[in-house]
Amino acid sequence: MEQALIDWLRARLPAHPLLTLGIGDDAAVLDMGGAAECVVTVDALMDGVDFNLQEIDRCRAGRKALAVNLSDLAAMAAEPLAGVVALVLPKSGGLELAKSLYEGMLPLAEKYGLVIAGGDTNSWHGPLVVSVTLLGRVTPRGALRRGGAKIGDRILTTGAFGGSILGRHLDFEPRVAEAILLNERHELHAGIDVSDGLSLDLGRMAAESGCGAVLDLDKIPIAEDARRLAEQSCDGGTALDHALSDGEDFELLLAVPPAEAARLLVEQPLAMPITEIGEMVAERGLWRRTDSGEKCPLAARGWQHELD
Amino acid sequence: MEQALIDWLRARLPAHPLLTLGIGDDAAVLDMGGAAECVVTVDALMDGVDFNLQEIDRCRAGRKALAVNLSDLAAMAAEPLAGVVALVLPKSGGLELAKSLYEGMLPLAEKYGLVIAGGDTNSWHGPLVVSVTLLGRVTPRGALRRGGAKIGDRILTTGAFGGSILGRHLDFEPRVAEAILLNERHELHAGIDVSDGLSLDLGRMAAESGCGAVLDLDKIPIAEDARRLAEQSCDGGTALDHALSDGEDFELLLAVPPAEAARLLVEQPLAMPITEIGEMVAERGLWRRTDSGEKCPLAARGWQHELD
Repeated sequence: MEQALIDWLRARLPAHPLLTLGIGDDAAVLDMGGAAECVVTVDALMDGVDFNLQEIDRCRAGRKALAVNLSDLAAMAAEPLAGVVALVLPKSGGLELAKSLYEGMLPLAEKYGLVIAGGDTNSWHGPLVVSVTLLGRVTPRGALRRGGAKIGDRILTTGAFGGSILGRHLDFEPRVAEAILLNERHELHAGIDVSDGLSLDLGRMAAESGCGAVLDLDKIPIAEDARRLAEQSCDGGTALDHALSDGEDFELLLAVPPAEAARLLVEQPLAMPITEIGEMVAERGLWRRTDSGEKCPLAARGWQHELD
Repeated sequence: MEQALIDWLRARLPAHPLLTLGIGDDAAVLDMGGAAECVVTVDALMDGVDFNLQEIDRCRAGRKALAVNLSDLAAMAAEPLAGVVALVLPKSGGLELAKSLYEGMLPLAEKYGLVIAGGDTNSWHGPLVVSVTLLGRVTPRGALRRGGAKIGDRILTTGAFGGSILGRHLDFEPRVAEAILLNERHELHAGIDVSDGLSLDLGRMAAESGCGAVLDLDKIPIAEDARRLAEQSCDGGTALDHALSDGEDFELLLAVPPAEAARLLVEQPLAMPITEIGEMVAERGLWRRTDSGEKCPLAARGWQHELD
């Protein structure tokens, strides 16, 4: 990392009890605080794809790069510990951009007790790329996986879906505290965060669990943004379409045994609503429940990086 | 990560006793194998900067992306455990490129007992970026740091320097085994891997240690590549200039107390030579020793990502 940026960062990073050796060496050394297992996740964000630096405050790009990774830890019900940040900066104005990105990250890191342990800073003639890797540790109940859903489990969600492109995709709150609380106090079979689209990510959870999922479409909690987007856009997409496929909601999608789900729906232990939207079923694939109670195939839609 | 790439990778990744949960979930879960501390490092490499995909076998780009990170673990005398890989791929031919990169990484990962635990795959209209994060654990002697050098320590190196651009920067062997062996059997005060240039990285080790370093220029081990480059190029740079400033040698630079250094130089426990090239001194900065034994300032030169 460039020395000027190292010095700037060192002055801004609060001390962290678990960080044995921080920024400035070849690697960071982190005390795992007694945890036997380490949870690790990485996500890279690109200018022009995940945000547009010409249109937004650059701090928000930095915040998003960290928040999407926090959401992955939330999906595992893991407690954030440390992060390392690789920056690929445009040559011109790179140092100021790097500072802005970190200024977006640092308050969020502090909020979640996460220490920025190290980084790598590069420059080139291309657009910005921010790659964040986070380390976490699981709580005593263990990691919440995608693949643990069982037939008959109820599908629960936090919050509401759709239209995040209107701004929420930058400023969302990762469901870290919510996931840890739910996993500690309740019996959850599986979980995923909705990053690429409610239907797409539900399909992934079902596939990893070796079963299918049926949605009650009239129960999907639709975000106000989804309604606004449906009104604004000319592509004929309804608010429900947006809720099912927009992605970047970063809400939790959980598979919960029926009795536990019933308790959760009554207790409502979170600041945002928990909603039941469907059920895991034996028949693989994604389905919607018709008015007569039968299953009809539903296309999983959402954001995918197309590779050819 | 795109499903086709996940499936392809899962079929190729050997089982690893420490990987509790691998590719395909929101995050990976790694058993630390009883280690209380986790060493973490990240490096991002870019097409057109760190390699040129139009000129080389793409496997070598993948191998380099992993090897530079292994070299960072070597610089800490840490044992490699796991890695996560973030890919930013060009839209066209991205899947085949991703496979080639992993084909370059996997044999090297296996050689060093490292498991690829997860990843993130993206595509865009820009050039390739590969960001690799590695986790390791320290051996009982603890992490080898940059900042532990003491005045009077001898400066030792493995191997030879300069001219890596002729090909060695892609195919070098990270000094993981060598660093662990030396740190276990010998008293090392500080260490760094030479990634950006012998003089630049030595200056960094000295600065972190709060002292200076004086080099005996006639003792610097000069790689055959450095001599070839000096003959080929028209810029007037000597082979020694290349050895001092080229970078990407990925050899170890160590600060060792005098008696231990004397033992090491006699024992020569590695397959490549260990050479004494100077001494840590009280006066901060970088120096060369003149014929009369005095100190003369020496510019630290090497590769730096210029930010403005």
